[in-house]
Amino acid sequence: MLGVGAVKNMFALSRSVYVTLWKRSASQAAGQRLDISGIYPPIATPFTKQEELDYHKLEENLQKYAKIPFKGLVVQGSNGEYPYLTEEERVEVVSRVRLSLPRDKLVIAGSGCESTRATVRMTERMAGVGADAVLVVTPCFYKGKMDSRALTHHFTQVADSSPVPVVLYSVPANTGLELPMDAVCRLAQHPNIVGLKDSGGDITRIGLAVHKTRGLDFQVLAGSAGFLMAAYSVGAVGGVCALANVLGRQVCELERLCVEGRWEEARELQWRLIEPNAAVTRKLGVPALKQAMEWFGFHGGACRSPLQPITESESQQLRRDFSSNGWL
Amino acid sequence: MLGVGAVKNMFALSRSVYVTLWKRSASQAAGQRLDISGIYPPIATPFTKQEELDYHKLEENLQKYAKIPFKGLVVQGSNGEYPYLTEEERVEVVSRVRLSLPRDKLVIAGSGCESTRATVRMTERMAGVGADAVLVVTPCFYKGKMDSRALTHHFTQVADSSPVPVVLYSVPANTGLELPMDAVCRLAQHPNIVGLKDSGGDITRIGLAVHKTRGLDFQVLAGSAGFLMAAYSVGAVGGVCALANVLGRQVCELERLCVEGRWEEARELQWRLIEPNAAVTRKLGVPALKQAMEWFGFHGGACRSPLQPITESESQQLRRDFSSNGWL
Amino acid sequence: MLGVGAVKNMFALSRSVYVTLWKRSASQAAGQRLDISGIYPPIATPFTKQEELDYHKLEENLQKYAKIPFKGLVVQGSNGEYPYLTEEERVEVVSRVRLSLPRDKLVIAGSGCESTRATVRMTERMAGVGADAVLVVTPCFYKGKMDSRALTHHFTQVADSSPVPVVLYSVPANTGLELPMDAVCRLAQHPNIVGLKDSGGDITRIGLAVHKTRGLDFQVLAGSAGFLMAAYSVGAVGGVCALANVLGRQVCELERLCVEGRWEEARELQWRLIEPNAAVTRKLGVPALKQAMEWFGFHGGACRSPLQPITESESQQLRRDFSSNGWL
Amino acid sequence: MLGVGAVKNMFALSRSVYVTLWKRSASQAAGQRLDISGIYPPIATPFTKQEELDYHKLEENLQKYAKIPFKGLVVQGSNGEYPYLTEEERVEVVSRVRLSLPRDKLVIAGSGCESTRATVRMTERMAGVGADAVLVVTPCFYKGKMDSRALTHHFTQVADSSPVPVVLYSVPANTGLELPMDAVCRLAQHPNIVGLKDSGGDITRIGLAVHKTRGLDFQVLAGSAGFLMAAYSVGAVGGVCALANVLGRQVCELERLCVEGRWEEARELQWRLIEPNAAVTRKLGVPALKQAMEWFGFHGGACRSPLQPITESESQQLRRDFSSNGWL
Repeated sequence: MLGVGAVKNMFALSRSVYVTLWKRSASQAAGQRLDISGIYPPIATPFTKQEELDYHKLEENLQKYAKIPFKGLVVQGSNGEYPYLTEEERVEVVSRVRLSLPRDKLVIAGSGCESTRATVRMTERMAGVGADAVLVVTPCFYKGKMDSRALTHHFTQVADSSPVPVVLYSVPANTGLELPMDAVCRLAQHPNIVGLKDSGGDITRIGLAVHKTRGLDFQVLAGSAGFLMAAYSVGAVGGVCALANVLGRQVCELERLCVEGRWEEARELQWRLIEPNAAVTRKLGVPALKQAMEWFGFHGGACRSPLQPITESESQQLRRDFSSNGWL
Repeated sequence: MLGVGAVKNMFALSRSVYVTLWKRSASQAAGQRLDISGIYPPIATPFTKQEELDYHKLEENLQKYAKIPFKGLVVQGSNGEYPYLTEEERVEVVSRVRLSLPRDKLVIAGSGCESTRATVRMTERMAGVGADAVLVVTPCFYKGKMDSRALTHHFTQVADSSPVPVVLYSVPANTGLELPMDAVCRLAQHPNIVGLKDSGGDITRIGLAVHKTRGLDFQVLAGSAGFLMAAYSVGAVGGVCALANVLGRQVCELERLCVEGRWEEARELQWRLIEPNAAVTRKLGVPALKQAMEWFGFHGGACRSPLQPITESESQQLRRDFSSNGWL
Repeated sequence: MLGVGAVKNMFALSRSVYVTLWKRSASQAAGQRLDISGIYPPIATPFTKQEELDYHKLEENLQKYAKIPFKGLVVQGSNGEYPYLTEEERVEVVSRVRLSLPRDKLVIAGSGCESTRATVRMTERMAGVGADAVLVVTPCFYKGKMDSRALTHHFTQVADSSPVPVVLYSVPANTGLELPMDAVCRLAQHPNIVGLKDSGGDITRIGLAVHKTRGLDFQVLAGSAGFLMAAYSVGAVGGVCALANVLGRQVCELERLCVEGRWEEARELQWRLIEPNAAVTRKLGVPALKQAMEWFGFHGGACRSPLQPITESESQQLRRDFSSNGWL
Repeated sequence: MLGVGAVKNMFALSRSVYVTLWKRSASQAAGQRLDISGIYPPIATPFTKQEELDYHKLEENLQKYAKIPFKGLVVQGSNGEYPYLTEEERVEVVSRVRLSLPRDKLVIAGSGCESTRATVRMTERMAGVGADAVLVVTPCFYKGKMDSRALTHHFTQVADSSPVPVVLYSVPANTGLELPMDAVCRLAQHPNIVGLKDSGGDITRIGLAVHKTRGLDFQVLAGSAGFLMAAYSVGAVGGVCALANVLGRQVCELERLCVEGRWEEARELQWRLIEPNAAVTRKLGVPALKQAMEWFGFHGGACRSPLQPITESESQQLRRDFSSNGWL
């Protein structure tokens, strides 16, 4: 295990140097969209028992993730408990991840806030600390008013001002609304909007999003390992999968089988991932994800309140969902 | 076009002779489950302007469907307006379809009613007029009480007494409830329950249903052309697709591509079917399905009230959903 | 207890004589709408263990109900398990109730079916056996298409042809849809539509329905004892309350207190009815209603399958909801 | 109209002096719960066209509200666009309102955040600038995990540490979840939790909350003018009503009629408030509320993006909902 001092050193590389390097690589890519295809874990944020950010544990996780063939990491997707972080914490976590992670791995940072102005500012800050792209969730508090008009306006404002490419993010289980398809199609034409992470799981919608944005170099990512293979079958090019925090190699293997067209093998693997995936997402949520991470050699750590630890009976259920599929 | 007399003759084959033939073929199959893999249109029921059953138009549709490589027909799925038929009409329609359809095509008859006893009786009558299998929808009026316990009891009672194999049917858009996965798994063990038609479209659930029933010879059918390819990718073996009433050959072609593992081609075709499919199902419903049938050379006919004809603007939208995908 | 023979005699009065008497009283009322204000239990339908209709038990319940100051009975509301009765049974039950019940009590018969034509016919049959009015539920299977246009058409057709006044019935917990307010307002103008039973419990909607139909002699009934007092406060004139099957006198007492403007006393009583009411409706449903009836001296009897008897733990919960409010 | 200088002076009273005064008045009340009965507008937050806080307009609104017999103001309820304010802005607005408002009017400040720790801190800050009580909304992002256990823990932590009394806040239209009744009952026993603002509108639930917390001096406020009278009828003691931003005197008049038991007059007034209320809440939302405020002599100002101004046709609809009830 690493000492605290060593961890601090890992994060010590000057940010300004770092950002300069990053800008050069970005300019090299001018003229074409950022390729976001591949698998990303939306990383969990470990907290201490006192609910403080545990950067040490985070760093150890990053060391392990660096060895898995992920395309990159999503920092502060829903599984990162971003609504429970302060603005400063959100930026700091992304900054540290970028400094720690090998340069060839993408960092996609969740920068969504409820207001457009806050999202614009957070997006700039995330880019400022090295995010390669931002993931922007649909605002949702005034859900009755978050129609195509409002959401198109919101994402356009954010994309217009963002220094880095924008990925749209629709996650109805948390927000209570889906980014409407007509908004997706319009926004896909924006030069700075490169894709969509769709966590709703409506495979018809995912296929349609691919179909309706053909020729626009718009990339659709499955928002869960539960429908990853099906999403690939209809044209998605990657996935942001909570389960990849736990079974990262397996999710990458599923990607590989899909990309290589080895559908029979893919299917066998996909099947075994459905229940573990459901357990750490819709059934038992982030606290279960963090528990499972512990079982598989990662640091989950505590959740911030009001999220509560899973109960003993939930823990048993969680274990069953992994063991009955041969993972434990 | 056929005269009324000719149509009557088509239905003239003695039912008792017919049923005897059928029973023999059934007994030959003893020891193995009925193979229901393949594509089925859940046929629409044409009515006259006075809302009477139009058997003449039905027969002409059947003649055309007989030439398409369907595995069979579903008679009185949701698209057949079965809740608007009397008990006698329900049986009569199935009887006529069976008599008209070539013997090598399966007739799967919707026999679901709200009460178990009515479903048992309707199932017997459907078998009595030659249905090869029955499709039994979840009862739904007392949805708060239709939990796993109640539904397992219901389907078990029906399957115990049914002379023909039973296919479970979950269609939450109409019923407001999904057949719970634990009930599916338990019911899959019943020797007379051969499969599930899942119209909910949750592809994770479809994959899980296949996975959890492996070794039980339990067959999962996609309940819509919108997610047909994705369903095949995770192990479904067929589809009951409203759109097959209109674009039957194309849906069968999609099946063939999936079965042969030609996923690239399948994807291209699947994409073009999503919008027409949505238009005739969740967006505009049965009245739109019937309108589209008219455009493609079939008889849709009127709907029974309270279903209303689509409006002029809906008709234009419907046309666009077909034409923008190259079908009109 | 009555012998079977006695019960049969109770129903022996000739129907044709009866209907003649009824028509006369109806014609006397020509020129003004039927007054439906007051309290009605939507009576449960007792079945034997073999799930056959138990007319004997029904009759004994009716004898008891006749002594409670109900305005009348609703026969085949949702609590009557009407979707589980055959057409013949539905008519027969109404017929027997009408023959048994004192003439000064109204019989409002549920005549709703999914299709307009079936509802028209059932309405005629219900009137033919003496129903004073019919309660017509919104059709709901094709819920995506049951918009204002379709529902207005449906209810208008039914009311046009009905020999007796029509009461609209909105019960979203079962049907998954609410009768839209604009349809309510339009339908309230129909001379043969006298009121609305609203079981949704949105008190704002109930107040608005009263407000928007002022001057039309349109009567709004609360569909549950849980919000009966609140409904009176905003202008409802009665209630169809499942709980009145069990605590009929108390529900009538609540009505009296509201009508007399004794709101303080009403509130005390209302409070004590909320939990028992919830227990026999949305929490535990018809099987709990029938169980509670047994405790209070009525015959609940069995439910028809797929409704299942309540479990032991549900029974304890049910008992608690009555006892903690001082009723057991 | 006031000049900018005058407005600044209004806010000039030293905060520390103010807070000292406040603490004394609070200590005088030791031993009994804060009386929160009465009517509160959840005030809108006026923005300039550049979406900056417009304190001048806010102050002018406050001058007008001070003359209406409100019990106080709710600052940063849902209608205050609080999710669109920064932490600093949230505190500053409350501070200014407290300094401007006559001392005998209560300031209830919305201090809810997603995490418990942020809510605790915001609560302290709100108290620090003079809030008489805080209104704490249910956290909602991880709605699947926000069960009774989590929410009880959250509110208990907040109430334990809050310098001022806490009012629970359930607003399912925005949050997608209701504070469960068992959590309400448990939390009502906390000495520092004085009431519940329930915006869900389930009148049965409101009655039950009153009933189940009798003897605990727990006060229930209706969260909307649409069901204010009904809420009074079942025991609520006040209301936090968006419509009071526009028709404040009328909402207070409705309160008075209810409190005095003049139910007939109350009903007439209640009816005329339902449609205007729905228009500025669930139908057209905050942008419509702000538009209507302009018509009635208050400053609505712009909304922050992504909230969009209402369209011309929505504006006409809004106007109709007021004019058809005699308010315009």
